[in-house]
Amino acid sequence: MCDNLPSDEIFGFEGPEKKLEIDFKHSKHASLSHVHQDEWQRMLDEAKCTIISTMKNEHCTCFVLSESSLFVYPFKVIIKTCGTTTLLKCIPVLLEIAKGLDLEVDFLWFSRKNLNFPEKQLFPHSCFEEETEYLNDHFHGKSYILGPKDRDHWYLYIADLSDKNNGFDKQHAAKTDITMEVLMHDMPVSVTQQFVRSEDFVDAKTTTRTSGIADLLPNSMIDDFAFDPCGYSMNGLLDEAYWTIHITPEQHCSFVSFETNFVFSSAEAYQKLLQKVIDTFRPGRVTTTLFADEAGELEHKTHYAFPEELDAPSGSHYELLNKTYTEFEGKCGYNLTLCNYVLRPSAEGER
Amino acid sequence: MCDNLPSDEIFGFEGPEKKLEIDFKHSKHASLSHVHQDEWQRMLDEAKCTIISTMKNEHCTCFVLSESSLFVYPFKVIIKTCGTTTLLKCIPVLLEIAKGLDLEVDFLWFSRKNLNFPEKQLFPHSCFEEETEYLNDHFHGKSYILGPKDRDHWYLYIADLSDKNNGFDKQHAAKTDITMEVLMHDMPVSVTQQFVRSEDFVDAKTTTRTSGIADLLPNSMIDDFAFDPCGYSMNGLLDEAYWTIHITPEQHCSFVSFETNFVFSSAEAYQKLLQKVIDTFRPGRVTTTLFADEAGELEHKTHYAFPEELDAPSGSHYELLNKTYTEFEGKCGYNLTLCNYVLRPSAEGER
Repeated sequence: MCDNLPSDEIFGFEGPEKKLEIDFKHSKHASLSHVHQDEWQRMLDEAKCTIISTMKNEHCTCFVLSESSLFVYPFKVIIKTCGTTTLLKCIPVLLEIAKGLDLEVDFLWFSRKNLNFPEKQLFPHSCFEEETEYLNDHFHGKSYILGPKDRDHWYLYIADLSDKNNGFDKQHAAKTDITMEVLMHDMPVSVTQQFVRSEDFVDAKTTTRTSGIADLLPNSMIDDFAFDPCGYSMNGLLDEAYWTIHITPEQHCSFVSFETNFVFSSAEAYQKLLQKVIDTFRPGRVTTTLFADEAGELEHKTHYAFPEELDAPSGSHYELLNKTYTEFEGKCGYNLTLCNYVLRPSAEGER
Repeated sequence: MCDNLPSDEIFGFEGPEKKLEIDFKHSKHASLSHVHQDEWQRMLDEAKCTIISTMKNEHCTCFVLSESSLFVYPFKVIIKTCGTTTLLKCIPVLLEIAKGLDLEVDFLWFSRKNLNFPEKQLFPHSCFEEETEYLNDHFHGKSYILGPKDRDHWYLYIADLSDKNNGFDKQHAAKTDITMEVLMHDMPVSVTQQFVRSEDFVDAKTTTRTSGIADLLPNSMIDDFAFDPCGYSMNGLLDEAYWTIHITPEQHCSFVSFETNFVFSSAEAYQKLLQKVIDTFRPGRVTTTLFADEAGELEHKTHYAFPEELDAPSGSHYELLNKTYTEFEGKCGYNLTLCNYVLRPSAEGER
């Protein structure tokens, strides 16, 4: 069922992550926050990745992984893994952990950008059809391909198991949930070399500060990790919000992902953050998504968060290539905006 | 590359049409309106369908085909064919006709809904990948899958060859281009039986009147055709606008398509027309699209043309399942809204 053709044998690290988010129905008697790290590692064993660092605050426990990140809230788990990890294989263990706590799934979300080297992926990630089939064995969801199928695009599987008439959940749903992702390719060497070990390397904390990453969401707690010989990951916590950055610096497959669920109060604030992220990494092309859970209130925001043009240095600019806005169900109001931007260099070719 | 599995051997007529629209750069020296009908039939031979009726006004010549319709404007051709026709094979002949008139392609659009019996299609329509590959041999376009991939969805290939800096084209582009399609499945027998020959059958004109079709866009010129033993097609012309309806009445694969490029001045007018079309055919599920060529002016319209709910008789209603809005290029502003609705019957089950 897969239509991935073997590509030329130029191979690099697969930066673009697979992401799984599962929300559980709230309970007064249990919380995922109390699950022991060993249990999470047992789950991650299925995806073939390892916890390398941990940080927590009163809202969230987060883990830097050998391949990306894990975030655990009382009733929500977000797993993001890159490379050739087998993320979806975590599902049976995660459901088993939840069952032990009498927690029921409320909402599931699986997404990823199109990959650079899809033919290197392992079961069940050989292609989106295989991923969908695997998910359908556990859930009753819907699958989408957002953006142009033959350019930068985004795969999404969404299963909504929430009971809209449940009073307790309804009350909780009043809390806004917004997630922004910025997926960046083709960074200049002047940017990527900051994430390659050299004689000048001090420590991850220094890299986080000098690269400008620390300034993206100031006053955060940060857990950062610089890989040897290259690569960089960080998790940030800012009150209830997380943010996370993963960097593949190799020139022929350079990739940076930025993601946060910090809730800003205006479209302008999201636009400002997007501009700041892009100023920091100066990518050649960008795919950005904004997911929100209340169509009514946020339609306005999501539409204005992504302008026709973004700034770039020296008279260059980023041009919006296409924008896709999707409402997933009329009643529950989940919606997602996806945009592709490309850098249009100025006459001088500066960037 | 195709992922169509052979389905169970229940086979019916493939109502959902493939649609090809090619716009040519305007010229003062030529017009497609003067091309002889024999030339169009030569083109349609490639798709394996036949002209069965013709109508024209000062703006447009339209043809009812053995499988759907053809519309010819001075610089625009729209071909819509259903069944197992091989629509894309018309392209080489169409390009040859245009070349003979020194007309250059400005914009190409190929689209279709997901099919009921995809495994019955012939080359190059075995699957969207094959269609895309065939189109890529002639054009440099982008392909999209809009709506949920495993439910009612829509395939689109779009190639924009327009020169934005061309003064003549720019002037022309000031004219708004909006196309609405309403694709309907699962009609009740009380509706479909009107399009099956019976003792009561008088003529196509009577069917057009008694079914309510004539009232959808009043004061139009209408060319209608009732097939024997069943099926119905019509083309309408209203000044510069066309509209067209094709009906597959067989109960296990019932399908009705409505399409028009009539330009209404408000979102409410589109919503009213959609409601009128749905009232006329009372489908079980609906996929509706609105394509517009000026994002700025029409974003408002397209967003409000498709409400959360549409009326149905006897306390039933149509529920919006999902909405997808896509802007294809930042600068040219083509955009499309696609919605899926499903009939939610009232407690009495009336429809």
